[in-house]
Amino acid sequence: MTAGLSGRAEARWAHRRHSAPVVSPRAGRMWCRVLLLTALCASQALGYGYKTYWYTTQVDHFSFANNDVFEMKYLVNDTWWNGNGGPIFFYAGNEGDIELFLENTGFMFDIAPEFSALIVFAEHRYYGQSLPYPNSSLSDPSKAGYLTSEQALADYADLLTYMRATLPGAGDSPVIAFGGSYGGMLAAWFRVKYPHVVQGAIASSAPILQFTDITPCQAFSKVVTQTFAKDSEECPRVIRKSWDAIDRLFETQEGLDWLSSAWRLCKPLNGSELADFRMWLSDMYSNYAMIDYPYPANFLSPLPAFPVKVACSYLHDDHGDDDKSLLTNLYDIINLYFNSTGGVDCIDSSSQGTDSLGDDGWYFQACTEMIMPMCNDGINDMFYPSPWNLTDYTADCKRKYGATSRPLMAPLIYGGINLTASSNIVFANGLLDPWSSGGVMRSLSDTLVSVIIPNGAHHLDLRASDPADPPDVIEARRVERDFIGVWIAQYTKTADNNQFNAAKRHW
Amino acid sequence: MTAGLSGRAEARWAHRRHSAPVVSPRAGRMWCRVLLLTALCASQALGYGYKTYWYTTQVDHFSFANNDVFEMKYLVNDTWWNGNGGPIFFYAGNEGDIELFLENTGFMFDIAPEFSALIVFAEHRYYGQSLPYPNSSLSDPSKAGYLTSEQALADYADLLTYMRATLPGAGDSPVIAFGGSYGGMLAAWFRVKYPHVVQGAIASSAPILQFTDITPCQAFSKVVTQTFAKDSEECPRVIRKSWDAIDRLFETQEGLDWLSSAWRLCKPLNGSELADFRMWLSDMYSNYAMIDYPYPANFLSPLPAFPVKVACSYLHDDHGDDDKSLLTNLYDIINLYFNSTGGVDCIDSSSQGTDSLGDDGWYFQACTEMIMPMCNDGINDMFYPSPWNLTDYTADCKRKYGATSRPLMAPLIYGGINLTASSNIVFANGLLDPWSSGGVMRSLSDTLVSVIIPNGAHHLDLRASDPADPPDVIEARRVERDFIGVWIAQYTKTADNNQFNAAKRHW
Repeated sequence: MTAGLSGRAEARWAHRRHSAPVVSPRAGRMWCRVLLLTALCASQALGYGYKTYWYTTQVDHFSFANNDVFEMKYLVNDTWWNGNGGPIFFYAGNEGDIELFLENTGFMFDIAPEFSALIVFAEHRYYGQSLPYPNSSLSDPSKAGYLTSEQALADYADLLTYMRATLPGAGDSPVIAFGGSYGGMLAAWFRVKYPHVVQGAIASSAPILQFTDITPCQAFSKVVTQTFAKDSEECPRVIRKSWDAIDRLFETQEGLDWLSSAWRLCKPLNGSELADFRMWLSDMYSNYAMIDYPYPANFLSPLPAFPVKVACSYLHDDHGDDDKSLLTNLYDIINLYFNSTGGVDCIDSSSQGTDSLGDDGWYFQACTEMIMPMCNDGINDMFYPSPWNLTDYTADCKRKYGATSRPLMAPLIYGGINLTASSNIVFANGLLDPWSSGGVMRSLSDTLVSVIIPNGAHHLDLRASDPADPPDVIEARRVERDFIGVWIAQYTKTADNNQFNAAKRHW
Repeated sequence: MTAGLSGRAEARWAHRRHSAPVVSPRAGRMWCRVLLLTALCASQALGYGYKTYWYTTQVDHFSFANNDVFEMKYLVNDTWWNGNGGPIFFYAGNEGDIELFLENTGFMFDIAPEFSALIVFAEHRYYGQSLPYPNSSLSDPSKAGYLTSEQALADYADLLTYMRATLPGAGDSPVIAFGGSYGGMLAAWFRVKYPHVVQGAIASSAPILQFTDITPCQAFSKVVTQTFAKDSEECPRVIRKSWDAIDRLFETQEGLDWLSSAWRLCKPLNGSELADFRMWLSDMYSNYAMIDYPYPANFLSPLPAFPVKVACSYLHDDHGDDDKSLLTNLYDIINLYFNSTGGVDCIDSSSQGTDSLGDDGWYFQACTEMIMPMCNDGINDMFYPSPWNLTDYTADCKRKYGATSRPLMAPLIYGGINLTASSNIVFANGLLDPWSSGGVMRSLSDTLVSVIIPNGAHHLDLRASDPADPPDVIEARRVERDFIGVWIAQYTKTADNNQFNAAKRHW
């Protein structure tokens, strides 16, 4: 949490990242073979098999004021690679250690065999170990300022161009980009901006429309509320009522003491923390909606299948004016989220309990380019009313990072919803996932396809197949696989045409 | 000239820019009306009518290390603008004062009435008066380093997004980009990279393929030679012979004295200047080919129609071993180019006689991003043999500008010939123009169309119509006009679809 920032977006993103590092049945198998790449090969697989490489690229791809270079990490699995023009499945790394994304994107491994694909996961600059300036602070914009999506995409284009030029058999390989969440935004934008590098993109749970003047700031909160209302309207109704109950308890020391004790908080509440306390609860609800997977998932602590349904089962609108009765029920939701194993002594209300990775980097991005307006009205959503105030938000960012926010930068560079000149992107969104609020929810053309997963949470489609998968995510993956096949076939045709044209050139 | 750089490309570009500032018959008419733009309106039309505005934009659009802003100049003519969704004809300014390009792009003014188009010419950063750091030297890469095509395109996208958001009636206006030479490269790449801003592009004489590993380094010289051989093989044959003759004269003081006198050189030659002297002649020949227009044009000095033909009429292969006889004939070509009015006392062999604008900026670009390999073999071209040596070239650049050259940057960012995922670009090239060597000379798809103008020199199609225009340039302009009409109709349809999709969004 970044105190002082209204930062709902930040908080949510920070948690979204912590998708379950489920080790698949494949764990332990050693797929690595030696690739003819001039790079280091250091690590071995922990979950899915891979080898680790490093690629040297520019810190600034678009200017010559800074000619520094840095090393970005990338992971390669060539188990199914046929070495002869087979496709490259490329994961556009997002804000965290790249290994985490590799271990949570089993879909790429599931379908690689049928396409004889090379699997590549590239780590996003300023995250994990891909640090342009390892010892510099993100609060110094002269060093941190190169942490932008545009620079990251240029890193990926540079890496893939290098791989196609140097890896035998990869010169004619089409690249299919994959990504979830911010990585899904990158995958989509990679195709938009570098179609000569990327033949098509699977952009899962990619809120590319979650920007100023495109998506209403309340959209996210409304989807969270819908997910909580899925089984019963009672659930969001009780949560909505809880804000007033909390307010009343915060008015007296007795109320604060009671709440601190009843909720087993590690640190007793004081009255000045009300806004942060509301935010902490709101973020937890949003996280519940994001990770509302159909099977037990091992997040911070193991959660049952469909955790929102379980959470809502604790709430009933039968408390009348009894605030303490209501909040006692609510504690069960908190306990499920933060203490499902029963091993936690107390609840830390200053944290979402995540062993956060890359938070600082994401906060910087959320303050500069990735400004995603968020607000609640407490009427059409279940949250405490909170307007969006861009001026306050950017002033906080300026104070914190010294960088000037550019809320319209991403829409300017990438086009917002105006993508019809592009092609070959599948936008997959689960309706349980609040980030679907900023997703592309209607097909924009025959080749800019929206796939809706009614029972899907945050990029469920990118996870490895699971016996508990609902039919709609199985169907979504089938559609994605079919499009990948079409794109690869198209690429071969295009490559032939290009060679034909090149041969006809008149010198 | 940049002494020490092999820099053929630079020299040619420097001259190419000096297209004739012909004042059209429209000169003097006042078309300016007040636009509702929050900008300064300073200048009045000298040639074509326009008003001058300024727009504040980022020095660095892709990072947050530098949050400086600067003011870019743009010129607007709204004579034919209907103020209600009519198109914006946007000239992507290249390396020089924007007024110069406005006055040499009469085609946009010729066709604006039938499209009810708003005309906008934007000045390229670091040229004319659009200087991010007016008092800084280009030799300081921390200031000059933001002079790149990527940054310039982002300037243009930012300006047009602003204009569409603020100019009443422009919100639904499709933008058609125009540009010649480097401006043509920018126009094409503008469509490639910002199709949400630019609906289509007329890219005239745009050598987007004149880069490392795409176009052979000799291609340019071969086209110059072809243009000189158009009427007679004798002409390039004599020029090819002249190099040995010059070499022999440079071997003795008597020879140097004779040449200095016979060619009326302002400064007597000395033997150490041989390489520069050859370059000076080579550049003049290249310029002749570039400006081989079908009507008299007022360049540095007035030149007749088809100046290459006139030049070649002075040369005959009947000199045997008589070097002085050959070079005496050659002097007539030099005299035509540098002294056609007869008012010049002597010939300055250290200059192409251009009142150069923006040379320094272009040299920086040619050393950093716009590295266009050039070479001659003296067999398949008429030039003195000169290999391309990238290592030497970039070492010179490093010494001169302190910046590290990136020969593969433009192909990485823009895709080289691999453009088939893009659309709506007409690439027009004249076969007399040596820059056609790096042009797109075959249609890549139904909407990436190559238009060849057999009798055309450098971006002849963008010049105002002239009674002496050959039929092929008239036809090229007709094709361009037709495509513009199609793109505008497509845009309207797309806009409708987008609104439909937006209305269907589920919140």
